[in-house]
Amino acid sequence: MKKEKISEFTTHRLSIYLRCLTTLEEEGVETVSSKTLAERFSLNSAQIRKDLACFGQFGVRGLGYPVSELRRRISDILGLGTMHRVCVVGGGNLGMALAEYGGFLQHGFFRCRHLRQLPRKIGRRSRNGVPIYALASLAEVAGSEGIEMAMVAVPAKAAAAVCEAVFDAGIRAVLNFAPVRLQARPGTKIHSTDLSISLEGLSYFLANNPQAGS
Amino acid sequence: MKKEKISEFTTHRLSIYLRCLTTLEEEGVETVSSKTLAERFSLNSAQIRKDLACFGQFGVRGLGYPVSELRRRISDILGLGTMHRVCVVGGGNLGMALAEYGGFLQHGFFRCRHLRQLPRKIGRRSRNGVPIYALASLAEVAGSEGIEMAMVAVPAKAAAAVCEAVFDAGIRAVLNFAPVRLQARPGTKIHSTDLSISLEGLSYFLANNPQAGS
Repeated sequence: MKKEKISEFTTHRLSIYLRCLTTLEEEGVETVSSKTLAERFSLNSAQIRKDLACFGQFGVRGLGYPVSELRRRISDILGLGTMHRVCVVGGGNLGMALAEYGGFLQHGFFRCRHLRQLPRKIGRRSRNGVPIYALASLAEVAGSEGIEMAMVAVPAKAAAAVCEAVFDAGIRAVLNFAPVRLQARPGTKIHSTDLSISLEGLSYFLANNPQAGS
Repeated sequence: MKKEKISEFTTHRLSIYLRCLTTLEEEGVETVSSKTLAERFSLNSAQIRKDLACFGQFGVRGLGYPVSELRRRISDILGLGTMHRVCVVGGGNLGMALAEYGGFLQHGFFRCRHLRQLPRKIGRRSRNGVPIYALASLAEVAGSEGIEMAMVAVPAKAAAAVCEAVFDAGIRAVLNFAPVRLQARPGTKIHSTDLSISLEGLSYFLANNPQAGS
């Protein structure tokens, strides 16, 4: 197992396999071949075999992969066995949505603590019970609660300073939603999710693929 | 200009260059070299030159790229000159955040119409005035309003059916937030933004990069 060599693209694909396997497990499917997995979920079967071969012997020739075992194994590789505590920084609509987004909890790996700058909400809780703190207490709360990841959903102009505050608080993993590029420090990681970039990709598609006459 | 040959990775990078150039323009910078652009925003200067060379002659050797002109040009390439109308399908917190997210409007290319299934809100408007419709009227509203893109933020189990309804309504570009893989039809495009996948990538980073002793 060459853990060090796994690229972000590979971990991204492992996450996708995990979702597909979870679906199959819920349907009661016990084994699946790379070919069936690929056809069912629009994946590349050669890529699946290559990705999974990195992590040792999974499949049985002619039978395919054992669904539940493979799902557990990928979950372990991604470090999802431990509960990572995540906080949200940013109290706008997106920050509130992230703090309350049920989708994450289904994957069972984090608890959300919401840090909001607007004074009128500090000391209260969000609708689903996430406590709201002042940004000034980030380091203190991160230390006492063992927070390891931060989702940063603040305006572009504030993002760099907030990111520095997050690192100063000892949080080493950041998911950034602001439409700016942020600098990671050594030993830290930033993933950026800029929704506008996805929309611009779709805009490019529409501009270059005019509707067929109908 | 070989429009057909541009990959999603390239359009993604063009979107990033666009943000960097907008920042520089706001700062009053008139020209920038690929080297400075790369250093300032943690990009790859050779990649910048290669990407921009696809679209004709931009830079002046020794002087660099004219910031405003390059920004406009990339904006045109991405089809951002025309205002694409976007709707949101899904009335949960994420859907509401997307319908009200100011970040998109700064890029000036869409207007948001919010289609919500919860009956108690239908016929009303969101806090920032986005009208809320029943999903059943999607095709009618999409036709009358000229909606070209849909952001789908519904639970995983509902996403495939909603996506079919979106395509049936003549909308050809989908940004999917549900943690499932959806099938595009010929002539349509789906971008998926699964926030859990980003968090899992960070989880993998934390699992494989233990904190240095401090």
